[in-house]
This record gives sequence, structure tokens and C-alpha cells, in this order.
Amino acid sequence: MGEAIVSDLLTEILIPVAAVIGIAFAVIQFVFVSKVKVSPERQGVPSSNNKNGLDDYLLAEEEEGGNEHNVAVKCAEIQNAISEGATSFLFTEYQYVGIFMVAFAILIFLFLGSVEGFSTREQPCTYSKDKACKPALFNAIFSTVAFLLGAITSVVSGFLGMKIATFANARTTLEARKGVGKAFITAFRSGAVMGFLLAANGLLVLYISINLFKLYYADDWEGLFEAITGYGLGGSSMALFGRVGGGIYTKAADVGADLVGKVERNIPEDDPRNPAVIADNVGDNVGDIAGMGSDLFGSYAESSCAALVVASISSFGVNHDFTGMCFPLLISSMGIIVCLITTLFATDFFEIKAVKEIEPALKRQLIISTALMTVGIAIVSWLALPSSFTIFSFGTQKEVKNWELFFCVAIGLWAGLVIGFVTEYYTSNAYSPVQDVADSCRTGAATNVIFGLALGYKSVIIPIFAIAISIFVSFSLAAMYGIAVAALGMLSTIATGLAIDAYGPISDNAGGIAEMAGMSHKVRERTDALDAAGNTTAAIGKGFAIGSAALVSLALFGAFVSRAAISKVDVLTPKVFIGLIVGAMLPYWFSAMTMKSVGSAALKMVEEVRRQFNDIPGLLEGTTKPDYATCVKISTDASIKEMIPPGALVMLTPLIVGTFFGVETLSGVLAGSLVSGVQIAISASNTGGAWDNAKKYIEAGASEHAKSLGPKGSDPHKAAVIGDTIGDPLKDTSGPSLNILIKLMAVESLVFAPFFATHGGLLFKIF
Amino acid sequence: MGEAIVSDLLTEILIPVAAVIGIAFAVIQFVFVSKVKVSPERQGVPSSNNKNGLDDYLLAEEEEGGNEHNVAVKCAEIQNAISEGATSFLFTEYQYVGIFMVAFAILIFLFLGSVEGFSTREQPCTYSKDKACKPALFNAIFSTVAFLLGAITSVVSGFLGMKIATFANARTTLEARKGVGKAFITAFRSGAVMGFLLAANGLLVLYISINLFKLYYADDWEGLFEAITGYGLGGSSMALFGRVGGGIYTKAADVGADLVGKVERNIPEDDPRNPAVIADNVGDNVGDIAGMGSDLFGSYAESSCAALVVASISSFGVNHDFTGMCFPLLISSMGIIVCLITTLFATDFFEIKAVKEIEPALKRQLIISTALMTVGIAIVSWLALPSSFTIFSFGTQKEVKNWELFFCVAIGLWAGLVIGFVTEYYTSNAYSPVQDVADSCRTGAATNVIFGLALGYKSVIIPIFAIAISIFVSFSLAAMYGIAVAALGMLSTIATGLAIDAYGPISDNAGGIAEMAGMSHKVRERTDALDAAGNTTAAIGKGFAIGSAALVSLALFGAFVSRAAISKVDVLTPKVFIGLIVGAMLPYWFSAMTMKSVGSAALKMVEEVRRQFNDIPGLLEGTTKPDYATCVKISTDASIKEMIPPGALVMLTPLIVGTFFGVETLSGVLAGSLVSGVQIAISASNTGGAWDNAKKYIEAGASEHAKSLGPKGSDPHKAAVIGDTIGDPLKDTSGPSLNILIKLMAVESLVFAPFFATHGGLLFKIF
Repeated sequence: MGEAIVSDLLTEILIPVAAVIGIAFAVIQFVFVSKVKVSPERQGVPSSNNKNGLDDYLLAEEEEGGNEHNVAVKCAEIQNAISEGATSFLFTEYQYVGIFMVAFAILIFLFLGSVEGFSTREQPCTYSKDKACKPALFNAIFSTVAFLLGAITSVVSGFLGMKIATFANARTTLEARKGVGKAFITAFRSGAVMGFLLAANGLLVLYISINLFKLYYADDWEGLFEAITGYGLGGSSMALFGRVGGGIYTKAADVGADLVGKVERNIPEDDPRNPAVIADNVGDNVGDIAGMGSDLFGSYAESSCAALVVASISSFGVNHDFTGMCFPLLISSMGIIVCLITTLFATDFFEIKAVKEIEPALKRQLIISTALMTVGIAIVSWLALPSSFTIFSFGTQKEVKNWELFFCVAIGLWAGLVIGFVTEYYTSNAYSPVQDVADSCRTGAATNVIFGLALGYKSVIIPIFAIAISIFVSFSLAAMYGIAVAALGMLSTIATGLAIDAYGPISDNAGGIAEMAGMSHKVRERTDALDAAGNTTAAIGKGFAIGSAALVSLALFGAFVSRAAISKVDVLTPKVFIGLIVGAMLPYWFSAMTMKSVGSAALKMVEEVRRQFNDIPGLLEGTTKPDYATCVKISTDASIKEMIPPGALVMLTPLIVGTFFGVETLSGVLAGSLVSGVQIAISASNTGGAWDNAKKYIEAGASEHAKSLGPKGSDPHKAAVIGDTIGDPLKDTSGPSLNILIKLMAVESLVFAPFFATHGGLLFKIF
Repeated sequence: MGEAIVSDLLTEILIPVAAVIGIAFAVIQFVFVSKVKVSPERQGVPSSNNKNGLDDYLLAEEEEGGNEHNVAVKCAEIQNAISEGATSFLFTEYQYVGIFMVAFAILIFLFLGSVEGFSTREQPCTYSKDKACKPALFNAIFSTVAFLLGAITSVVSGFLGMKIATFANARTTLEARKGVGKAFITAFRSGAVMGFLLAANGLLVLYISINLFKLYYADDWEGLFEAITGYGLGGSSMALFGRVGGGIYTKAADVGADLVGKVERNIPEDDPRNPAVIADNVGDNVGDIAGMGSDLFGSYAESSCAALVVASISSFGVNHDFTGMCFPLLISSMGIIVCLITTLFATDFFEIKAVKEIEPALKRQLIISTALMTVGIAIVSWLALPSSFTIFSFGTQKEVKNWELFFCVAIGLWAGLVIGFVTEYYTSNAYSPVQDVADSCRTGAATNVIFGLALGYKSVIIPIFAIAISIFVSFSLAAMYGIAVAALGMLSTIATGLAIDAYGPISDNAGGIAEMAGMSHKVRERTDALDAAGNTTAAIGKGFAIGSAALVSLALFGAFVSRAAISKVDVLTPKVFIGLIVGAMLPYWFSAMTMKSVGSAALKMVEEVRRQFNDIPGLLEGTTKPDYATCVKISTDASIKEMIPPGALVMLTPLIVGTFFGVETLSGVLAGSLVSGVQIAISASNTGGAWDNAKKYIEAGASEHAKSLGPKGSDPHKAAVIGDTIGDPLKDTSGPSLNILIKLMAVESLVFAPFFATHGGLLFKIF
């Protein structure tokens, strides 16, 4: 077996140190960003007169080099309006979700507590029958606490991300006046603040929780890490509501604003005359920033929990090898350091001088972080693992060498990069797939949609093979633990991934602010270039999120099967097969709900925007101000109301299936929703991304071919706008929410596994 | 165990008698239809002057009661043109597919012959080791023969169907002058000719093959029914090319005709000035008629083969109980008799007097046939089965009672009805789902597409539950045999189902002929009413086809697993899981290919139609004739060329996976493609159907709500036309082809199972 080179004490020190370094780095980046002054007289504006910041800014034209002070004030006002709108929405959302979370926490306690009839006596451990483990009642209490901790951390992650983004957007706009390089640095640093804060925060809370829980659990690591899985469930539950609610909010506003503004009234995007423009910008922050932050934090928490729970019943847990147990956390710690170095390549080692350098700079971030992290994984595997150890694998122990585990983590990491680049190929308008879609706009919206859907379906092929190969290799080397660490590998560079992801909506907002503040064409051109690069990286980020979700949920599924004491999930038994086919149906049901929600909310928004254009005289001429607040309210109400049914579908399905049909059927449901959901998620994201960029391709007119399709307002362009609008709910609501569906059902099943194993399958017991 | 009431000799008599009755009934219906005289002077037209019938007919206006003779001649000419176009396409298609079929037949022989190294020695049987079975070499020969028989029967089925449909369409048009009831009867009788011919023909060929094969196999029923599965493979392979090729043909023409004619030039559908109009009408016959005929024949052949192969290693086969073995064929025989009675309800017992009676009359057909068939199944189960018998279930024998098997067949039958009615609810514009989609056209094409996609996703829910419940019940009662007979139950009323299905395109063509022959508005109104009812029943037919495909392929999958000697398909083994996730991806890959094919072919068609409108002077005014032949050629070339890659994907995947990755991975692929494919197939069909009927809802303007969205040419109507165009490839190319994908991969795996079990998994053997 052998011993790891790093002692347990050193592990106890290294993890929090890495987390603190990450937080410190985020603070430093924040200080850099905050040096850009937005409103020199902000204190001077009495906040009582400026309740929501929507009333005061002017619509006058402003030229670069003009009234510097005036522009800054206007930007500050718009930023304030967006920030306050976002804050107010998130608070409303958290109130509703908070009630749900408390109710669900009680449910967790009652279900898990009932496993041994709320007895306070110690029980023999599940996997080491000769040892005594803590009573189920206390596992229930600690699982509930971990659940709440995860939920709160997720809320904090999303909220902080939104705050940083709304802090950064106007600053990026202002810096864009000085040059594209300056603006890029500001947006990128802000993204890095979010990336590092989330990664470090997630690691730290998990680490502290483990240490605190250990005070009670002492030697019972099986119970300890069982309880810790609640952390993943909490993180993911919040992420679900964040993604769905935020996704409906942002797309209702976006679709509504575009359908009337761009299609009917022929005014540009982000034009201040459009009544839905503030709601649209708020949406970017609550959907793309807060939602995505919660989502990736959830993935990270779940993959760590999946690895920990499998390790706890493997030789690490059985022999109380703390360093080995903490291997997942050490990988994440190393990830923070690697991402820190990677970030310096973007902010300090190179300088962006021209627009065309932006996209390569962002792509370089991915490549550098992946290359460095491969070395990092090798170091951690060599130092923190014994040369050989055993891993629990469905009832047996499998011997694994440390270099084998290195391959598991590394293949996950590299599969992520492959998925990222395939996504780029299918969604960037530099390559033929998107250009073909743009070309099909010649014959109208119908062919555009047919080609776009076909592109999305096709883009699934290589990512699925990449995922399949990762699964096969990591499973063969280290069973379910291998898959869990492969997922962790894909997420190990999460700080960089998030930085790039957050960069997109920040640039998008910066462009919106430039437009609304009436800044010059030159500034808008620069922010557009930042935004275009951000579109592609957003698609790459979604690819990562989906790929890691597939691995994570498989690992959680494996852990669930182990804890539910099922030895096999045989497709040929009817209980499993009906689960499989119904599970494969769930992503469709869920997508039907979310898409219809966006559609209905957008219809309301369209009617309101049309009403304002018709009823408010002088609105189109720019002499009167629209009523932004009503549009914000429509988005808020719709998303709060509409996020409940899909949320309930995902949260209740495992409970109902487990309780009434038992663990075999539930296994089938998990496998079915995983293999079906991952396809829809990838195809929906890429179809939407491709339509968006096909439209941008025609608008930019950078080649002869593109020029032949344009300009803005031509028939092919109109067809492209229709495609883009259809793609909005696909790529920003349904698609990314599906990641959470497959992960959440798996982690929920894992947390409730002891209950299902004891009391589940009521229906079959009755008949 | 007991004995069946019906003796083996009686069984030998009953089956061919039922088949002959079916054929006789079809002939009688044909005689009725042929009494309608189309062209009194047809012999008078020298065929040398009228090579493809495209050149001669006039574009003059014609009023009802006008020149009777002239109208009949015109109709005959159009009918001739359509029939000759369809015949010529099918011959071209069969030539290409024929080459493929011969090559594949050789492959079957080589693969299966190599199992025992082409040895001619007898081998111990797989399931009864003490008995001697025929050598693998002869199984290879007979499998190949059965494959070719199945392929030929499928070709004959599709071709006959097309011939009947093109014989009936002009007759329906002419009868429509006399009243809607007369036209309905003509269209319906023609559908019945096809339905009964196919059902009886399929049964008869299978029955004769079994008896001929028995001359060689004698007591070796294991080998006999192994070889017979080739029949299912042959039928399904042809069906694949028929569906894909026909689907691309018809939709390229339809989309191309609509995009230029309806959207750009504002001329009605089926207008003779549209150059693609003949190609469009030809497409209906090669796609919807010939393709669907081959498809349902394939399903029928496969479900019979799946049931037979499982029965052959159960007590029926082991004890040589011929009546019990033939239970599937007896069910089909009873189905022919039941459908015969059902047909009389439409043609003789009731009379259609008004337009609004058409749809209820068709729906009544489904309900009557289902109710009668339930009694029929009970009778067959009581007479042909011993009161108790054993069924092979993955290595063990399970005891089954005859009434339990009755429930298996009956639940399949009724699940089909449920799926049919759910499909109707989601695709008929009499209900709110389609009306909501129509309403969303108010805000343009984008919301229409979003709502339509959401509707399709939602429509999956109940059918999946219906399929899941059927699977659970029939599996619990009689293992895989139960599922095979449930599929057979769903298909037992195939003659009626096909009659209703074929009725749709015949009415559609009749309307087209009325328009092209310049018949009065009144006639067109009547054929439109027939067509609208046909749209809904076509959607119901697709629902049946998909539902039965799911059951059939599960049964085939079960048979494959038994023959490949796998005892379990455990999702938790990496070999199976990667198969599952890759399998779930295949329907996306396949859809990407077929949709892109339709899109590209439609683009070419659009360019040609535009060119003709621009280059041919007087075309739009109706003074010059368009060049129909070029459009026919575009559709033909595109479909022949484009059907190869998706066909190859489906045919080669099982061979590659089985040979290189082995039977476990192949099991995963089959399960994955089944559970994922069935969802896409249902949602694609229903989305397309809903868009089509939402457009018709606006056009008909039958309610206040509908009127507020119309009339033709309004903005909401234009949005609806875009949706309809997008739906075309979804509902008529990708969606229905996916049924065949999931069935074909399963039956192919079953046929090649002995080879894979012996030589498969090369890659894992090497490493």
C-alpha cells in the first residue's frame, strides 16, 4: 500500500492556504477594477431622489472627448439601475426559494431520520459491519445542515458574482474609450474576481464543514461523508432555481425587446427607447452571471462530494488516510494556483492591442490552464497518494495505482478541452457550420431553423465520444471513483473557466451601457468586439458545464447505487427499463415547461412594449422616456411564477420514484435522464449559439459572403434574427438548466438513498 | 401444461385462409374503386406523344357541370404524370437499394457462415445441449434467403401501395363532384386495398417461408426461427431506405414549392403554375404511401419474428407445439378478420353525408377495431394456447397462463389507442394545444417555433407512460415474449391502421389534382375537408408506428440478449454505459443528416423554382407551362444521393459495435438509441403535425379566434407558414425514420448475434 509523501498535517494546512490565496487574488483583481472611477460625484446624488436610477439619465447624443463628467454620471446611473434591478430580483427570488429550501430541509431531516425510526442508538456501519457508526438521526441532522450550507454558499456565489458584474460593466464601458486593451483587462479582471471567489469560497466552506463535522463524527468517516453530500444537494438545488428563474427572466426580456424593437420598430439593440432594455440588461446579470455561478459551484460541490463519498468506503476512508481522502480537495487547491498563474498570462504577460487578439487571448487561457493543470495533477497524484490503494467498486475493492488515478483526472481535464473546442467550431462564425446556417437565411427563416437544428444535433457527436472515452478509461482504471475525479479534473480549472464565462455578459452589458449612454460609435464597436468573443467563450463554458455534469451525475449515480446496496442495474429487468425510458423523457418534459414559460412571458413583454410604443407619444422619437419598471416587473413576476413547476418536477421526481417504485426504477430514471439530457443540452446550447453568431456574421459583413447576405434589415438578416430569437430560450434557459436536472436528480437520490433502501418501493410492496 | 383446443392441422389451415380472405377483400375493394371511370378515352391517347404526361393538360378554368369529358381527361393526365413520376423514382431507388441489399446479403452469409468456420457438421443446440442442431453454415444460407424474401416483400408492399394510391387519387377527385360521401368512400376503399394487401401478403409470405424452411430444418425449430428473423431484417432495411429516400424526396419538393410559391409568389398550394407541384404530388406517393407501407410492414415482420424466436426456445418450441408457436400468426390472422368487419362500418353500415362526419368516422374505425380485436385476442388466446406453458426468460423458464398472455396482447392494443388519441389531442386544431401555437403566431415566427417545439416535447409525456406501463405489465406477465406479443397487439389492427393512413395522402393528392385540373371551388373544398381529417389520422398513424417500434425493438433487444448469451445488461459496467450514451446520441446524428439533406435539397429546389419564375415568361400569368421534369429530377437525385449516409449509419453501427466492442456495448447502444430515439420521434412528429394544423386553423378561420389571426397572407399566417415548413422534415423525414432506426439496429443485432457472440469485441480482445 505505502504512504503518501504529504503528511495529514500538511494537507490540513495546504487546502485552506490555497483557498485564502485564491480569495486574496480575487481581492487584488477587485482593487485593480475599482481604480476605474465611474461617478466622481456619486455621493453628491441624493439617493432618495434617485430611487431606482431609471428616471434621471438623458438620451442626448454624446461624442467621445465630449463632456467627460456627464458621460461618467450617465454610466453610473445606468449601472445603478441595472444593479438595483438585479439585486431586487435576486432578493425576491431568494425569498421564494428560501421558503422552499427550508421546507426541503425539513423533508431531508424527516426522511433520513426515519431510516432507523429516529433512534439515537449507534448502528453497525454499512460497509464495515464490525464497527459502530453514528445513528441515522444524527446523519439526518448533519445532512440537513450540510444542505443548508450548500444552499447558502450557492446564494452567496451567485449574488457576489452579480454584484461584481454590475460593478464592472460601466467601468468596462468607460475604459473602452481609452482602447480595446484597457476594456478587455477590466472585463477580464472582473470575471477573474468572480471565478476565484467562487472556487476558493466553495473549497473553503467544504473544508471547514468537513473539519467541523469531524468533531462529532470522529472515526465514523462513512457517516461523515454521507452527511457531507448534503452540501452538493444544497448547492445544486439553489442552482436549479437560479438557472431556471434567471433564464426565464433574461430571455423573456431579451425576446420581448428584440421582437418589437429590432423586428417591428427597426431600432438597434440596447436602444434606450426600448422599454424592455433595462430588464434585458438586468437579465444578463441574474441569468448568465448569478445563474451560471450557482450552476458551476453546484457542479464543483457535487463532484467533490461524489469523490469523497466513494473514497470514504475505500481504503482511504477505512484506513483513515486523511491526505488520500482529501485528494479531491487538493486537486481543487492546485487548480486555484494553476488558474492564478494562467490569469497572469492574460492580464500581465501579454497585452491586447487589437480587436482580433481578444478571442485568441481567451482561448489561450483555456490551453494554458489545461497544460499547467496536467502538471499540477501529476504533482498532487505523486505527493498526496500512496503508490497503491484500493477503491470501493460495487461491493468489491479494486486496487488502483497513483499514476492510474492521475490518468483519470487528466482525461477529464482534456476531454473538457476537446468539448470546448468542438463547441467553438460549431458556434463560432469563423468556421463553415455557422456560415452554412447564415447562408441558409437566403431562403428565409424556415431553412435557417432547419439548418440550425441539424447543426445542433450534429454538434453532439464528438462531445459524446469524448465523454464516453473519459468514462471508459476512468471507470476501467478506478471504477466510480475514477469518474468522480475525472469530473473534478474537468472542473479543476473552474476559476479560469468562470472568469472567461463571466467576461461575456460583462462585455455585453458594457455595450448596452455604451448604447444607452449615447456614447460614440467607436466605443460601441470596441465593446461589440469584446462581446462577440464573449459569445463564443460562453458557448465553450456551456460545453464544459454539460460535459462535467454528465461525468458528475454518473459518479453520483454510482455512489447512489453503492449506498442503496444495489449490486447491478440490469436494463433487462422491467423495473429498470421503465425507469430508463421515463427518465429519458424527463428532459423533454422539463424543456417543454421552460420553453413555454419563456414563450408566454415574452408574449406578455411584447404586448407591453408594443403598448408603450403606441401609447406613449414621442417614445420612438426619443423625446419621452419609456416605463422601464413595468417591463422589469413582468420579467420578475413571470420568472418567479414559472420557475416553480419545472423546479418541482426535478426535485420531486427522485422522491416519488424512490418512495413508490424503489431504487431499481430510480436507477433507471437516473441513467435515462443522464444519457438523454446530455444530448438535448448540448444540441440546444449549440443550436442557439450558432443562430446568434450567424446573425452576427451577417451584421458584421466581414467577408464577401457575409456582405452578400446583409446588411442589417435585409431579408436574410430578418430570417437570421428569427433564428436568434428562437435560440434564446434554447441556449440560455432550457439547455443549461438540463445540466442541473441530471446532476440534481442524482445527488438527491444519493442523499435519500438510505431512506429509499429502507422504506422505498411502496407500490411494489403493496401489490 | 395442457393442450391447445385448436389442433396443429387446423392452424395450418386457418392462417393461409385468413390471408387469402384478406387478399380477396382487397380485390373486392379494388373492383369497387375501379368502377369510377377516370378517362373514358384513355386508350385513345397515344402514349408516345405523352411520354411523361406532363406536357398536355390545360390550365383553363373549369366549372362544375362543365365539360365532363374534358375534366376527366385532364384528371387522367395529371394522375398519369404523378403515377409515372412515382414509378420512375421507385425504380431508380430500388436499383440503388438493390445493389446494397445484395451486398448486405453476402455480408450476412459470410458473417453467419463464419461462426463455425463454414463447417457443414451439425452442432449441439444452444439451448438444448443434448440435441443436434443444423450447422451454422445452413443457418447463414437460410437467414440470407429470409432477408432477401423480407426485402422483396417490402418492395412489393411499398410499390403496390403507391400504385393503388395513384390509381385512386384522380378517382377521388372525380367522385368529389358528386358529393363528399362518395369521395370519402373512394379514398377510404383505396386505403383499405393497400391495408389488406399488405397485412395479408406479409402474413402469407411469412407463413409459406416457415413451412418451406421446415422441410430442411425438421425438428430443429431453434435454427428454423433463427433463420426466419432474417425476414424482419430484410423488411426493415428496405423500409429504412424507403422512408429516408421518400421522405427527402417529398419534403424537398414540398418545402421548395411552398417557399417560393406560397411565401414569395403568393399563389395557392398545388397551383399548376408552380414548377415543383408535380414533384410535390409524386413525393406524397413515394414518401407517405410507399415509405409508410414498407415501414409498417417492417414493424409487423419484426414483431412476429421477435415473438417467434423467443417462442422457439420456450415450451412451444421445445415441445414442438406448432399451434402455440404460431400464436403470433394467429393473432395477425384474427386481426385481418376483425379489420374486415371494421371496414364495413365505414363503407357499408354508415354513410358520410356531411364534412364534419369524416373525422369521427375515421376515429370510429380505430375504436371499433380495438374493441373487436380485444374479443378476437381473447378467442385466440383461449383456443390456440394451452392453459399454462413456459416462456424462456434470460436463461430460466417462466410459467405463463393463457389469460396472462391475453393481457399482454391486449395492453399493447389499448396502449396504441391511447397513444393515438394523445397524438390527436396535440395535433388536431380542435383542441387548445394547436390553438395556442396558432395564437403565438401573433408575435411572429419565432414565438410560433418556440411554442411548437415546446408542444412536441410535452406531447411525449403520456405516450411514454403508456409504453412504460405496457412494458412493465407484459414483461412481468410473460418476460420478453410478453413484450413481443404486446407489440403484435398494437399492430394487430394494421389493416385498418394502414387504410386510414393511406387515406390521407390519397385525399391530399385528390385535392392537388382538383386544383391542377382547375375544378370548381366546391370540389376543392370537399377534398380539403377530406385532407384535413387525413392530417390528423396521419399523425395518429405515426403515433402507432412509433409506439409499436418501441415495443418491437425492446422485444428484439431481449431476443438478441438471449441469443448472444448475455445474462444481464448492467448499466454500471463501463462497456454498457458508453454504449448507452453513444446509442442515445445516434438518433441526433441521424436526424442531423436527414434534416440537413432535406434542407440542402430544398435550397436547390427553391433556386430552380425561382429561376423558372424569373426566366420563363408568362409562367405566373398561367400562359406558359413550367418545366416540371427538372424539379422531379432534383428531388430524385437529392434523395438517392442523400439516403446513403443515414442508411449506412444505421446499417453499419451494429456491425461495427458488435465486431469491435462486443455484445455488452452493443446492448447498451440498442437500449440507448431506443429510449432516446422514441422521444425525438414522437416530439418531431407532433411538433410538425401541430404546425401544419395551426396553419390550417388560421386558413380555415372557423372560429372568432381563428378569424382574428387570418386571413391567408396576414402576418400571423405568414408566421404559421414558416412553422409548417420547418415541421415538414421533422414530421415526414426525421421523425418517422427514427422508428426504423431503433427497430432495424435491434433486428440486425439479433440476426448477427451468433457472429458477435463468437467473434465480437475484437478491440477488447486485442487490448
